[in-house]
Amino acid sequence: MAAHPVSPLAPKSYPTLPAVAGARFATALSGIRYKGRDDLVLIDFAPGTKAAGLFTRSSMPGAPVEWCRKILPSGAARALVVNAGIANVFTGKAGAQAVKVTADGAAKALGCKANEVYLASTGVIGQILPAEKIVAQMPKLKAGLKDSDWMSAAKAIMTTDTFPKLATAKCKIDGKVVTINGFCKGSGMIAPDMATMLAFIVTDAKLPADVLQALLKASNNQSFNCLTVDGDTSTSDTVLLFATGKAGNTAHAKASDKRLAEFRKALTAVMSDLAQQIAADGEGAQKLVTIDVTGARSDASARVIARSIANSPLVKTAIAGADANWGRIIMAVGKSAEPANRDKLVIKIGGKAVTKNGMVRPDHDDAAATKHFQSRDVRIEVDVAVGKGAARVWTCDLTHGYIDINADYRS
Amino acid sequence: MAAHPVSPLAPKSYPTLPAVAGARFATALSGIRYKGRDDLVLIDFAPGTKAAGLFTRSSMPGAPVEWCRKILPSGAARALVVNAGIANVFTGKAGAQAVKVTADGAAKALGCKANEVYLASTGVIGQILPAEKIVAQMPKLKAGLKDSDWMSAAKAIMTTDTFPKLATAKCKIDGKVVTINGFCKGSGMIAPDMATMLAFIVTDAKLPADVLQALLKASNNQSFNCLTVDGDTSTSDTVLLFATGKAGNTAHAKASDKRLAEFRKALTAVMSDLAQQIAADGEGAQKLVTIDVTGARSDASARVIARSIANSPLVKTAIAGADANWGRIIMAVGKSAEPANRDKLVIKIGGKAVTKNGMVRPDHDDAAATKHFQSRDVRIEVDVAVGKGAARVWTCDLTHGYIDINADYRS
Repeated sequence: MAAHPVSPLAPKSYPTLPAVAGARFATALSGIRYKGRDDLVLIDFAPGTKAAGLFTRSSMPGAPVEWCRKILPSGAARALVVNAGIANVFTGKAGAQAVKVTADGAAKALGCKANEVYLASTGVIGQILPAEKIVAQMPKLKAGLKDSDWMSAAKAIMTTDTFPKLATAKCKIDGKVVTINGFCKGSGMIAPDMATMLAFIVTDAKLPADVLQALLKASNNQSFNCLTVDGDTSTSDTVLLFATGKAGNTAHAKASDKRLAEFRKALTAVMSDLAQQIAADGEGAQKLVTIDVTGARSDASARVIARSIANSPLVKTAIAGADANWGRIIMAVGKSAEPANRDKLVIKIGGKAVTKNGMVRPDHDDAAATKHFQSRDVRIEVDVAVGKGAARVWTCDLTHGYIDINADYRS
Repeated sequence: MAAHPVSPLAPKSYPTLPAVAGARFATALSGIRYKGRDDLVLIDFAPGTKAAGLFTRSSMPGAPVEWCRKILPSGAARALVVNAGIANVFTGKAGAQAVKVTADGAAKALGCKANEVYLASTGVIGQILPAEKIVAQMPKLKAGLKDSDWMSAAKAIMTTDTFPKLATAKCKIDGKVVTINGFCKGSGMIAPDMATMLAFIVTDAKLPADVLQALLKASNNQSFNCLTVDGDTSTSDTVLLFATGKAGNTAHAKASDKRLAEFRKALTAVMSDLAQQIAADGEGAQKLVTIDVTGARSDASARVIARSIANSPLVKTAIAGADANWGRIIMAVGKSAEPANRDKLVIKIGGKAVTKNGMVRPDHDDAAATKHFQSRDVRIEVDVAVGKGAARVWTCDLTHGYIDINADYRS
């Protein structure tokens, strides 16, 4: 795979993520696909760590997704193993076997049960994962475990990503300071329907597994589920949230507990930050696009409309070409099959209203809209004037870079 | 708008369309947008001509679509006026006024009623159509009416099309020879949900309007509804079928009449031919792609899966790059949310099976699949192994040409 230029939307600097008590990291080079870079991550969790997870809704889920779904009900986690290069998807019984060999190998090295080892893989579909190469790295990984090496972990899971994606937040539960760290990858095949490519969040908060799951689901709905690069939902989408319980807070029994308000907000902030970084590193992305739809019949309807705009090749290429061709936004609303009032609909580009009474405003400034489309941070707002539903979606433009990357990914 | 290279999939030669008794043609240059080419078509129909029509399901339909919907119930047609350059969509009351002015002008010139004049427009959304420029051409158009100038008509409705699209067939009803001619345009914003960009079919058959409508709907389901270029459904999709009744056949009262069997087949053939020409002239297209899905829960389910494959940017770029990355086909089936059996699904590329038992076949020949993807005529078959539903969809690859064309359409 050829190296691609770093996204112009890459962060100017990366946050330094503090250690999370109860989580230790190591990375290695498996020799499966990549050369000259680590492609394997092990996270070791302290006993008592709880897990929550959300996975792709694809009917063709990968073997690691099926594994995680199987072990998640226990809510217990002792390790996470992630490899980049081969996704272990559509690999039949060999795929299930590779998963078992990996989990057994990690469990043996760390002295835990196989069903406490979470797995995720990203890369080419349909190739058999040589799990023995992962297991062979376990002694080295275990010996190299460090309290805090989030950057190495974020780098090791990259595929066509052009920058590592990290986010962190602190908040309080019952007066105790809690840390939430996350990292993720993703740049193509990104249209998560309930999770995203691969995202991992670790906190030292003490929370029951069912509460963790409810919190993850709610925050996911405001973060990764607001993201699309190309409308292509992956077979491997996985977001996992681990809570080591070392912060010393009380383990509240309800996700809606008022004492978790700050935590809910911080978790959503970390996950939103990561989701926007994925949009900013969408394959070939030159511009980050934020689409807000209001006035829809429901929030769900607003999301369908926002995604229809965000996934439209014609809207995305217009943004790429800085052609403020707002008629294509009209088209995308129209094709969504969701209720919208054509004659009262209001489009705003860069905060300035373009339409009124079913047509262009007399004072529409095409030059200003074009200038906004030339910026790195494109904002589109659409009020469809039939209700109170609202949704936000992040995406990127569709450029020659996307074609370059994807017409030649496997080679 | 810059000229773009002619699609490599353009026909080697164009069919010569015979005259259809009762239909006469003229084209002109309106001066609205284009220079040096005609952009306006008038078809004059003999009294007694019946019409059928299907239109976009977009909630943002253009003014000409609303006009046609309004006048269609009478089933009577005396004229069709089509312009290219401005779509007259999202133009509020000014758009409705432009439609009225155009229909009145044509009716006056031809001596018929305004509500017997069908209208269609294609081009930029959101711009007001200067109808007076169309009306100004009416005397010249009327004076220039000829029995047979299908090629000029097909050329006059082109926008980003790189070749004119024509098809013809003859068949018999009750022993009387009937001609069916059609022409159409479309290369981007093509994902018709019940019709296509603009397609016009004219026959000399004698058929009641309601029978014509039923025949059109059935044939459309096997032709234009099997087509997608970019998944972007137009606000202007219109397919109109006119029957002048000059062939001298008996006007059978039921679309399902056995004596119309040959006509049904010929109509579907003409419309399928046109639909495939649109796929072959998809913006930036280098390859025509035919996707057959079988074994689905229903025909409707098969179509959703076939469209999911056909609209996947990752599948389309893989074909563009001749990378037989069949894992992306798996992904596209998986994201469709339709029933499919992962472990029994069979993908064929160029007629050769790639998968078995939920993984790649041991004898899969990647080089042969790659070679097939290098051809101009790419065939993908997927059996999803859950039922008997089947569907075919035509599309094209996603290339740099699509970006070139659409990042700079308005300028």
